[in-house]
Amino acid sequence: MPETSPLALAQSLIRCPSVTPEEGGALSLLADVIAKAGFAVERPIFSESGTPDIQNLYARIGTGGPVLLFAGHTDVVPPGEADAWSHGPFSGEVADGMLYGRGAVDMKGGIACMLAATLRFLEARGPGFGGSIAFLITGDEEGPALNGTVKLLDWARERGERFDHCLLGEPTNPERLGDMIKIGRRGSLTGRITVHGRQGHVAYPHRADNPIPGLLRLASTLIAAPLDGGTAHFDASNLEFTTIDVGNPATNVIPATARAVFNVRFNDDWTAATLGAEIRRRLEEAAGNAIRFSLDLQPSNSPAFLTRPDAFVDLVADAIQAETGHRPALSTTGGTSDARFIKDACPVIEFGLVGQTMHEVDERVAVEDLDRLTAIYGRVLDAYFPA
Amino acid sequence: MPETSPLALAQSLIRCPSVTPEEGGALSLLADVIAKAGFAVERPIFSESGTPDIQNLYARIGTGGPVLLFAGHTDVVPPGEADAWSHGPFSGEVADGMLYGRGAVDMKGGIACMLAATLRFLEARGPGFGGSIAFLITGDEEGPALNGTVKLLDWARERGERFDHCLLGEPTNPERLGDMIKIGRRGSLTGRITVHGRQGHVAYPHRADNPIPGLLRLASTLIAAPLDGGTAHFDASNLEFTTIDVGNPATNVIPATARAVFNVRFNDDWTAATLGAEIRRRLEEAAGNAIRFSLDLQPSNSPAFLTRPDAFVDLVADAIQAETGHRPALSTTGGTSDARFIKDACPVIEFGLVGQTMHEVDERVAVEDLDRLTAIYGRVLDAYFPA
Repeated sequence: MPETSPLALAQSLIRCPSVTPEEGGALSLLADVIAKAGFAVERPIFSESGTPDIQNLYARIGTGGPVLLFAGHTDVVPPGEADAWSHGPFSGEVADGMLYGRGAVDMKGGIACMLAATLRFLEARGPGFGGSIAFLITGDEEGPALNGTVKLLDWARERGERFDHCLLGEPTNPERLGDMIKIGRRGSLTGRITVHGRQGHVAYPHRADNPIPGLLRLASTLIAAPLDGGTAHFDASNLEFTTIDVGNPATNVIPATARAVFNVRFNDDWTAATLGAEIRRRLEEAAGNAIRFSLDLQPSNSPAFLTRPDAFVDLVADAIQAETGHRPALSTTGGTSDARFIKDACPVIEFGLVGQTMHEVDERVAVEDLDRLTAIYGRVLDAYFPA
Repeated sequence: MPETSPLALAQSLIRCPSVTPEEGGALSLLADVIAKAGFAVERPIFSESGTPDIQNLYARIGTGGPVLLFAGHTDVVPPGEADAWSHGPFSGEVADGMLYGRGAVDMKGGIACMLAATLRFLEARGPGFGGSIAFLITGDEEGPALNGTVKLLDWARERGERFDHCLLGEPTNPERLGDMIKIGRRGSLTGRITVHGRQGHVAYPHRADNPIPGLLRLASTLIAAPLDGGTAHFDASNLEFTTIDVGNPATNVIPATARAVFNVRFNDDWTAATLGAEIRRRLEEAAGNAIRFSLDLQPSNSPAFLTRPDAFVDLVADAIQAETGHRPALSTTGGTSDARFIKDACPVIEFGLVGQTMHEVDERVAVEDLDRLTAIYGRVLDAYFPA
């Protein structure tokens, strides 16, 4: 009889110190539990020159369709100052009804709930439930993500694996469980502006060409007017300057170059190409012949994507409403996730725990939320594979 | 019979590798030559915790007034890539009528001319020339200037030394010998603006407070309008941003703070205090309640100073005109110099070689200019101490 308590599973996972790129025992634990439940388990390791080998997991039970894919990651961000935690970041301690630990919500807790729900579903229904369930779990989501979900999806496709729908267990709820399903994510585009001047002494500015006023002009231009007004399912695209760096330690020297970096989270009004062209147009207009600049746009493999509300989205929303009593918002806000890769394989939506403490000291989840999320995932399975 | 060729003296000085803080033999050479001519020579060494000991030189001949002070420095800036030089930076080679070497114009060449002119004057007039000549030469002008002219002037004052006029031999001519006397220098004020925000994820800008837009606003404000329109003897004050640094390597993170540094070269419309107040007023007006910033103004010990045109300035200008055929401009442009310290001891003006190659690779001076500057300094001595 396998362990089907999401709390016990989450505690066991948290106790594996799986800070990217370390596997820390987390995928092995998952593999053991899921293999005992009858899944065929594969552990592909991917590597790339200059990056550490990354362990991943793919498991499937059933041979026919429909195929429901649970996706996620067992790697976690570093705990930061361990001493600052009320309970050790890898201790998995429970206090006042809260489970503490790095990954409690992002997303070992979510994986524990998927796993517990699946084990219970299989216990109740047996292997002949009329379809397939797959788990696609990476150890490289919080890192550069080069050897994780992208390669795992390629690997699965080459083996002939096909999926009908995917539920990704990232923490999606801002305040309380059931608040929000993510049905899409904005795209992300990073740009680097370099303004070229001529170095010189501050006492002789006419012999130099200070690039900083030009950079101030160009940067101000990009934040002066909104990029768009938002779309049906997306907020307005947003541009943030993340750094400006000249690196000139000498207060009597006019520097030769000045650089700024910005990041845009953009909606489905744009592709990375059309957005890049618009940004370049705005900069060129502001620069005229007076400012010499170069613009480097980082090729973005993450256009905005949207899983349009359909029967699957309704099915998940119904499960949430049945368990929590409220209907989740269908949102496209927030950062990027591996859903941006999965969307090319099948429709994907995201629903998991409450994200408030993710990446913070004292990351924690209510034990009650683990039980309720398990119940929600269980309702999804029941509805997706009707008896 | 001492060496009175300015070329030979300049070559000997250039061959002393006296990159700040190294004495390199330059002051010893100077001391030997000048002592043989009858000067009383002192070699005060000054030090300060955390800085290397610095050698200096003070020499005087004569006991009565008037006292004419020649001032300068034997230390030089580093040569940079020695291989990039046409002739070794410490070789003192002559090619096509040009003497090459670090310090050729800034200002071993100028010191050689002062010395040659003084030796010739003493040869012609003997020690009873009706006054005193002093040399105040530091080895700490190109460095932090903590253990140089300031302390040497204090040291001299404590010994009862008084000066009537000072001629500082810095390179003052932009194009050709005789172009320009410097009768004053602008003040210098450095300011650091820090805008305080709140760190966060670029995907959730409403939970963060990006300090960069505020910094763009404040920095743009400071360069939007001129500080003044210039004064009778000074150009308009000028503000240059020298660096902006956020230092945030993460393109998905909104930084917590952003910093900019500016330097103002200001005229006699301002003191450092009134200028700092005006800058603070402009920043506060632009910031309103929307931008939280702090401003650090580096205490400046260099207000603008002006030696008003008088008989001494005329005497030097006459000497230049007699030798070169043109009347020098009386200027207050350019960087700071030790004249900002000397002005508290006596009226000071600056006249030396052509500055075009100073601090550059292949720093060099026309041998002809060395002879003519020696002749100009000789005319100054003759006129200052009429027979």
